[in-house]
Amino acid sequence: METFFNPRSVAVIGASNTFFNLAATICNLLKYNKYHGNVYAVNRKGESVHGCPGYASVLDIPDEVDLAVILISAKNVPGIVRDCGEKGIKSIVIESAGFDEAGDEGAALQEEIEQYMRRYGLRILGPNCLGTLNTHNKFCCFYGFIPEKYGDGFIAPGTISYIIQSGGIGVLVLDSFNKDLCRVNKMVSIGNKSDIDEADLIDYFNGDNTEVIGMYLENVQNGSKLMKTAMRVKKPILAFKVGRTAEGSRAAMSHTAGMANNDVIFDSACRQAGIIRLKSISELHSMPKMFTTMPLLRGKRVAVITNSGAFGGIAADLLVENGLEMAALAPDTIERLAKTGQLFNAKNPVDLGPAMSKQMFIDIFDILLSADEVDGLLPVPNVWQDIVVEAILELIKMCHHYGKPAALYIPNAIERILEIRSMYRIPVFESPEEATRALVVSHQQYTYILKKEQTHEGDAAEGAGKETESAIGV
Amino acid sequence: METFFNPRSVAVIGASNTFFNLAATICNLLKYNKYHGNVYAVNRKGESVHGCPGYASVLDIPDEVDLAVILISAKNVPGIVRDCGEKGIKSIVIESAGFDEAGDEGAALQEEIEQYMRRYGLRILGPNCLGTLNTHNKFCCFYGFIPEKYGDGFIAPGTISYIIQSGGIGVLVLDSFNKDLCRVNKMVSIGNKSDIDEADLIDYFNGDNTEVIGMYLENVQNGSKLMKTAMRVKKPILAFKVGRTAEGSRAAMSHTAGMANNDVIFDSACRQAGIIRLKSISELHSMPKMFTTMPLLRGKRVAVITNSGAFGGIAADLLVENGLEMAALAPDTIERLAKTGQLFNAKNPVDLGPAMSKQMFIDIFDILLSADEVDGLLPVPNVWQDIVVEAILELIKMCHHYGKPAALYIPNAIERILEIRSMYRIPVFESPEEATRALVVSHQQYTYILKKEQTHEGDAAEGAGKETESAIGV
Repeated sequence: METFFNPRSVAVIGASNTFFNLAATICNLLKYNKYHGNVYAVNRKGESVHGCPGYASVLDIPDEVDLAVILISAKNVPGIVRDCGEKGIKSIVIESAGFDEAGDEGAALQEEIEQYMRRYGLRILGPNCLGTLNTHNKFCCFYGFIPEKYGDGFIAPGTISYIIQSGGIGVLVLDSFNKDLCRVNKMVSIGNKSDIDEADLIDYFNGDNTEVIGMYLENVQNGSKLMKTAMRVKKPILAFKVGRTAEGSRAAMSHTAGMANNDVIFDSACRQAGIIRLKSISELHSMPKMFTTMPLLRGKRVAVITNSGAFGGIAADLLVENGLEMAALAPDTIERLAKTGQLFNAKNPVDLGPAMSKQMFIDIFDILLSADEVDGLLPVPNVWQDIVVEAILELIKMCHHYGKPAALYIPNAIERILEIRSMYRIPVFESPEEATRALVVSHQQYTYILKKEQTHEGDAAEGAGKETESAIGV
Repeated sequence: METFFNPRSVAVIGASNTFFNLAATICNLLKYNKYHGNVYAVNRKGESVHGCPGYASVLDIPDEVDLAVILISAKNVPGIVRDCGEKGIKSIVIESAGFDEAGDEGAALQEEIEQYMRRYGLRILGPNCLGTLNTHNKFCCFYGFIPEKYGDGFIAPGTISYIIQSGGIGVLVLDSFNKDLCRVNKMVSIGNKSDIDEADLIDYFNGDNTEVIGMYLENVQNGSKLMKTAMRVKKPILAFKVGRTAEGSRAAMSHTAGMANNDVIFDSACRQAGIIRLKSISELHSMPKMFTTMPLLRGKRVAVITNSGAFGGIAADLLVENGLEMAALAPDTIERLAKTGQLFNAKNPVDLGPAMSKQMFIDIFDILLSADEVDGLLPVPNVWQDIVVEAILELIKMCHHYGKPAALYIPNAIERILEIRSMYRIPVFESPEEATRALVVSHQQYTYILKKEQTHEGDAAEGAGKETESAIGV
């Protein structure tokens, strides 16, 4: 699998100097990124593209080629795949569309490709995909990218890896990271996944420097394989799946050629296999920071701290509606809180009132984090003074000290939240709903790890989840 | 009620030159805003504050006073209210906290105030509130505001009026409008609402230049009055209520002295009285633009248009999960769509693919809006070229022409959405979930208006809703 993210040499098939040629943008991007490997362009005229030496066929390339990236019209793809097989290229990305997602004719072409795949022992990514991105070595075969246009979120190396069944979603995640704390490690667009699927990639990301795995899925073809793989992996696996309704399934089908899966079964499979199911696309980029910056939530009892009274009630509603609990503070804890100063309310939610010192914030954080009856915090501090930001920076250290997380929300306009988050590098969520969800997924991951460890110890990894795993396979 | 938003003269009681005096910030704000009325400061020394002439008592002010704004410690408030009564001031804002929300002692003080209220025939706003804001004449008695710090969202005159039971929420709404299309007409913080409540204000906003009424409530004391009032009002009334859970209710109680209301009953009352219940605080500022920029959604059949394939399925899921329908396009409509050019998919969702002209967008919008089987649109255009923005600007005009709404979402990072929305003044929502909700609330308002018109015609306005109206009263 490593070849797809770190090839020593790559042939971009379809790259030419024609106006608006999409494959040429890949050559351009790799040159712009100063990619360390050799890049060849393959086109009818055998012309060089953006400084990459050109050949009329992969068979003419004098050197060994690790990876072929194909972006030509669908009907010509099978012949090119055969050429790649003959040349000894074992790893192929087919970015062209027009296969299973495009009716019978396309399906026949995809079948032909799969025959060559078996004959030559190839591994194929796609068809109908955007390819791969590795921020650490700057390898990227996404087409259509204008390198000058993308921000830090696209190229700064990080630790979150994504498996996506839509290029558009990948771009949205990368774009959103420009103003967030996480960065991407690797991203792979799997398209129609005629060969390589999400399970193969989860397995691969389990062995590299990935901290969190994010997935956007339109369908699952081999549910059993996905479940078995996910059960072995203790890194958080976050999945958003489209097609929760019949209408959504039909729409997804026309996009990446999936079969409609029963969503209830998928949901149950996720719970059994320890996959965290996301509720919106934005959670793909908003949730990972909860895992990279905070310890896991080991219990359900949460304390809310706010200096903006209304948010005490709002947070309490959200926590309870989402299956968490408002921690019932012990009399001793309440007494210690009351001693810190002029609190509006020393119960949970703790209402700090407007006038506060940095030390008072820190004292309150310490009292709550050290209390046995509190598993984690949902602080909603209005950042009206620098001391609040300073106190939050201390809070992050204290969370690690006590092994308990805090999911922060700042009740300010969104642009102010983005500014504070980027400027001070503090894990702030964009709404009280999002902060609550971060606590929920953190606790979910904690229970999944416990279960996976037990399953592993009992040597029953292969047996678990039998009830549903067959049901979600197509 | 007009006096609370447009007094000819106002006495700010408690304003002095002591360091960190909160009432003084009100004098400062009114001077900064060049408020047209007379502003007096009342403090023990009788000293002037920020250029407002000072008096030791309201009784010493030589001129008539329309409105008194009181921000002194709770125990001194009853005596001051009596003075106001003696002076002939009929309208009083009590911003001080420490009454019903602060235990028995506070409750006794509030009771004393209410006695004076009855004796002198006063109208009282609060206690424990932030006061009023009128962007059209720049009257604002919110305390603690540093005028240089607030942006356009705070002072530019608009048409959305808010009734809020928490100053913090009001500030959040105002702050959020800096990067949105709506602006505030009036905002009023009602606090413990010992006299003036949300129903009085809905009634008032029904008669002024308000287009949409937004409410943030922590409790409802007179459910019957609220329902009867709301039933008469055809302007959209949007309400967010905290206390959906027992834990949230308890937290709200410590904030503004409410009684826990049964949320199921409140929900049913809203449906009967034609109040749109909001699902998150952010909807208070995100939803009004759907009413000010678009016609109402008259049916449930929605067409999705996207140039980013994945969002077709995502939008379809959201629409169906939220009780709307994916419009089943007529063969004739599909044929017309197919003729516009190289579409990926001419069914609903319409997948435009990446290469498009402005005219093609417009043609597709026109075909869908003119189709009998389509009630509204959910366009998800990736704004990768200026032509897309230009087409959206045309779409807004077309929506008014056909009397059908479009709820737009742009699948880009949030900061890019904010930028495009402010720059081009197009009603873009910040997530596909928010765009879907905008369609839902638009359709809800349409059905409410129909019902209110029928109820009114049947002269049954007084009788409707009898089942629940008594149940939500305390």
